[in-house]
Amino acid sequence: MHAIGIDIGGTKIAGALVDEEGDILREARVPTPPTAQLIEDAVVAMVTDLAMGEAIEGVGVAAAGFIDAAQSTVYYAPNISWRNEPFQARLAARLHLPIVIDNDANAAGWAEFRFGAGRLVSDMVMLTIGTGVGGAIVTEDRLFRGGFGAGAELGHMRLVPDGHPCGCGQHGCLEQYGSGRALLRFANELADAGGIGQALADRRALTGELTGNDVADLIIAGDGGSLAALRQLGHGLGQGCASLGAILDPQLFVIGGGVAQAGELLLEPIRNAYLEHLPARGYHPEPEFRIAELVNNAGVVGAADLARVAARRTADSAQL
Amino acid sequence: MHAIGIDIGGTKIAGALVDEEGDILREARVPTPPTAQLIEDAVVAMVTDLAMGEAIEGVGVAAAGFIDAAQSTVYYAPNISWRNEPFQARLAARLHLPIVIDNDANAAGWAEFRFGAGRLVSDMVMLTIGTGVGGAIVTEDRLFRGGFGAGAELGHMRLVPDGHPCGCGQHGCLEQYGSGRALLRFANELADAGGIGQALADRRALTGELTGNDVADLIIAGDGGSLAALRQLGHGLGQGCASLGAILDPQLFVIGGGVAQAGELLLEPIRNAYLEHLPARGYHPEPEFRIAELVNNAGVVGAADLARVAARRTADSAQL
Amino acid sequence: MHAIGIDIGGTKIAGALVDEEGDILREARVPTPPTAQLIEDAVVAMVTDLAMGEAIEGVGVAAAGFIDAAQSTVYYAPNISWRNEPFQARLAARLHLPIVIDNDANAAGWAEFRFGAGRLVSDMVMLTIGTGVGGAIVTEDRLFRGGFGAGAELGHMRLVPDGHPCGCGQHGCLEQYGSGRALLRFANELADAGGIGQALADRRALTGELTGNDVADLIIAGDGGSLAALRQLGHGLGQGCASLGAILDPQLFVIGGGVAQAGELLLEPIRNAYLEHLPARGYHPEPEFRIAELVNNAGVVGAADLARVAARRTADSAQL
Amino acid sequence: MHAIGIDIGGTKIAGALVDEEGDILREARVPTPPTAQLIEDAVVAMVTDLAMGEAIEGVGVAAAGFIDAAQSTVYYAPNISWRNEPFQARLAARLHLPIVIDNDANAAGWAEFRFGAGRLVSDMVMLTIGTGVGGAIVTEDRLFRGGFGAGAELGHMRLVPDGHPCGCGQHGCLEQYGSGRALLRFANELADAGGIGQALADRRALTGELTGNDVADLIIAGDGGSLAALRQLGHGLGQGCASLGAILDPQLFVIGGGVAQAGELLLEPIRNAYLEHLPARGYHPEPEFRIAELVNNAGVVGAADLARVAARRTADSAQL
Repeated sequence: MHAIGIDIGGTKIAGALVDEEGDILREARVPTPPTAQLIEDAVVAMVTDLAMGEAIEGVGVAAAGFIDAAQSTVYYAPNISWRNEPFQARLAARLHLPIVIDNDANAAGWAEFRFGAGRLVSDMVMLTIGTGVGGAIVTEDRLFRGGFGAGAELGHMRLVPDGHPCGCGQHGCLEQYGSGRALLRFANELADAGGIGQALADRRALTGELTGNDVADLIIAGDGGSLAALRQLGHGLGQGCASLGAILDPQLFVIGGGVAQAGELLLEPIRNAYLEHLPARGYHPEPEFRIAELVNNAGVVGAADLARVAARRTADSAQL
Repeated sequence: MHAIGIDIGGTKIAGALVDEEGDILREARVPTPPTAQLIEDAVVAMVTDLAMGEAIEGVGVAAAGFIDAAQSTVYYAPNISWRNEPFQARLAARLHLPIVIDNDANAAGWAEFRFGAGRLVSDMVMLTIGTGVGGAIVTEDRLFRGGFGAGAELGHMRLVPDGHPCGCGQHGCLEQYGSGRALLRFANELADAGGIGQALADRRALTGELTGNDVADLIIAGDGGSLAALRQLGHGLGQGCASLGAILDPQLFVIGGGVAQAGELLLEPIRNAYLEHLPARGYHPEPEFRIAELVNNAGVVGAADLARVAARRTADSAQL
Repeated sequence: MHAIGIDIGGTKIAGALVDEEGDILREARVPTPPTAQLIEDAVVAMVTDLAMGEAIEGVGVAAAGFIDAAQSTVYYAPNISWRNEPFQARLAARLHLPIVIDNDANAAGWAEFRFGAGRLVSDMVMLTIGTGVGGAIVTEDRLFRGGFGAGAELGHMRLVPDGHPCGCGQHGCLEQYGSGRALLRFANELADAGGIGQALADRRALTGELTGNDVADLIIAGDGGSLAALRQLGHGLGQGCASLGAILDPQLFVIGGGVAQAGELLLEPIRNAYLEHLPARGYHPEPEFRIAELVNNAGVVGAADLARVAARRTADSAQL
Repeated sequence: MHAIGIDIGGTKIAGALVDEEGDILREARVPTPPTAQLIEDAVVAMVTDLAMGEAIEGVGVAAAGFIDAAQSTVYYAPNISWRNEPFQARLAARLHLPIVIDNDANAAGWAEFRFGAGRLVSDMVMLTIGTGVGGAIVTEDRLFRGGFGAGAELGHMRLVPDGHPCGCGQHGCLEQYGSGRALLRFANELADAGGIGQALADRRALTGELTGNDVADLIIAGDGGSLAALRQLGHGLGQGCASLGAILDPQLFVIGGGVAQAGELLLEPIRNAYLEHLPARGYHPEPEFRIAELVNNAGVVGAADLARVAARRTADSAQL
């Protein structure tokens, strides 16, 4: 049966009707409204449109933030300014469909596991490199949520004691050395330093500020400074993966998000730093590293499939 | 039905016949023999004795090292000098009983989850503070093994870049700031420094070398230097727990192993350092911290119960 | 007999007629004029008004800066642009009253010692957390001035070698990790980082610049990012208190100034960091930590009382 | 009237009958006995001998450790293995003389203030550079003790966060960068490094271990490596003095203890580092730096004079 996935981002809400193979049958997209009530209204309208004329197994809603283990309550969502909000119950009351709420990085990771780079393994870790660093863990074919639902915040393991300040209130988190924002910081530092950063400095002088697209353009053009910044990013991510390997021992690391479009240019320094920092190298099997496959739709496809998983678990329980 | 648990340590092999409540009905103990073949013979003899006259659901064997995800093959076990050894098959051929092999820290963690400090939660992390730092992760009532069976090596997440050298070939691992060996290093540094380390220096002068028992005695006697070394240990462990919290989000951290007998004296600095380094404090629920309850028998009790779990999973599969 | 206290701040001059119990009988306030001569005229006029019809034991004038040990000469006062100015003699010549000049943080500390949080102890240290970090030391019931009168500059002990640049020409001073200005820096870093700093970023976006009031409002509202910045401040202050404890061994630390209105939210991380960094913990008594009680009037009340103390010392000397 | 001073060190107990000018009339010296009771007996016997036929105003006993503000109880003394011992009462009961107990660095500092390098100032700080770093503070002609008597532990202000481990249980204390033990560490590091450390390496090769005397000999001989180690020491001490200057603003720093016999060779790097790290240089008067004058007798002379000060304070109180 089909399911619906919704991904509430900071600038847009995306939605899709998704079949059991993860293929998208219908899509929708609106700008993210400014208030929590308007966001709720927009989600209700979008689901209603997408569901038109279809039997729907469930609706999965993905958003950045902390969601409880029951996939019902939003502890905290930066894009919706909610604290401890029973979003599942509010949507269920209006839509009369099975609803689950999940973290957006979890949804993306689940999509890769089911239909993308991770479809052949049982245990994987995904790092989504966007503005920040999101994480997802799959273990024995199940999404790992943690005891309170707030697990897999992989961007906030500490990489450097007393390091760069982080939006989580700590210092030295992986996110500060492995995110798109970190890539921009590295690029700006190189632009300040001159030398191989000269092309970055020139680009910055044109507009007053470097953007992610600027750095991406220069990477594609083979600019040495931009490639150095990318390698620095990969080096940080690979060090994080070494600790994650000791803790989680995945068969596969999937690297997703916008920055992952750099492909092998990013994977190579990640792999190298991983091997350089791997504990007990040679005494146990080593994971693969792959780029994510579902570039733009991972959030909605994963959210839809998580809704299906939850619906079937509920059905199984009812049968017993 | 009863199960048998065996724990192969560096100095002794312990075994027990264990009932479904985790209670020990019979016990056995022999010194660890010097060769792998003699160890295997000793395990076979011990199981045969313990099983005498009983129906046995399964046998769980715990050992330090890396075990594969199928609980069959020992990638590497420091106490048995095996590499990629099919220990499960060798024992099954001689004992004609269902056998599973598991990491000793996993067995201890599972025992705490089933019958000890973790029996009321579904998701916990255990740190076993012995010579090294062992780890176990329980998620949704299941033991987390990782994709190759070598997960939960929590002692080898990195705490300090370019920090103290570790036996795993890396530097700055949690084990170097949170283990019994680290406690001895801190104690020796204080003994060298004099001042509140004087009692440690005096004890060391008596025998030429500080032992874990020396430091434990002085902690019990309230010696300020030994308490300072213990607090330093707790501070390292608490920082590690902060990163583990971001990744695994457990409801409970259980602190076990010999050093954990220090109780609240160790928990207090762990909790304080955890809160100080916790990402996004105040935005999601916080875990509890508890001392392990099954002090001496966690390994054999956990190994026996893991054998039972595996046996029932096999039975369930057969039924389908 | 009554005394008069004057507090010359950067934006206003406050004055009060104060009785022997530290109670204020009359008050006055004018904006701080732009030149040194006009400031002097304003002080003379204010004292004349406040003294009207009263017998006055002495006049105490508090100002930021370095005052000599004889409480006569201003080595340097940032708000008055004086260097080595005999302010005591100039005021005495016009007012015909006993005059003493003192550092404003000393005056505030003395007021807390005599009438506030420190009234039950003989030895205390006060940290005044305003734009900078001011200090006052009381030992054996006497204000500690230092050999040249410029002691208790507690904001300029070094916390971090080669740390954040400080207005005193050095780097890494306590003031750079424990002042209101530091709190704003931490808050801005979190606003830049996003995440739990989002509310700070939103507030900043409204006006283009975060103010102390913005952060204070968000702390009161329970905003996690602002609380994280406050804890970071407390952590720096507690580390400074640990060194101050080794040097000065006070019975009590009083935390005053605007930021201290955060109360226990600030005291908790100060106390925790103090205990974590305390030398020889457990070998000697430990001080208490309290919030200052005389929030707005500490400067004028302390200055008036210091004038009374000086007048009586002079009278005692004359008698001998 | 004469007074008696006793200095209990780790290897010997020294005692002297001292007149009001600080001149020594009789001396005594015994090895430090191994138990606290035998130490007490030795002190009683020594005082009895020194007092023979003289009117004694009081007896001052100096020892390393924490003494309470009433100069009666020893919180902790590393050389006597006492905790919270009422030593003053025990001695008074046997000697029937006024007794005061004081910290040994306080006694040495007081001797310098009364009869040595500090006799012309009212406010000074003394650093005693022995195995560790002791401290004493004099303010307005009074010895600064702190609210619990444990102040002026200047060796334990923090110089370097997470620095070298210290006998107080912390890391990075001034003592680890400014003591005789630190000088030996620096000398050994240079010996390991070769180059200008070659003479140190050669000397070490002769005996297997460098001693303080070895380094002192090489300093006198003008060996470049040993002078470099001494300058490193002075650099650490001068940085500490810069923070102490901000807090205590003394007119004079006195450098004493065995290492101070290096004289100007040590003072020069201390002064330079002080000026380099001085906050607000040029905005207030600067202190002098001098070597202590009472090389061997500072402890007993200071202890005797502190007993006289206490006796006269008691007499003054009785008169009132």
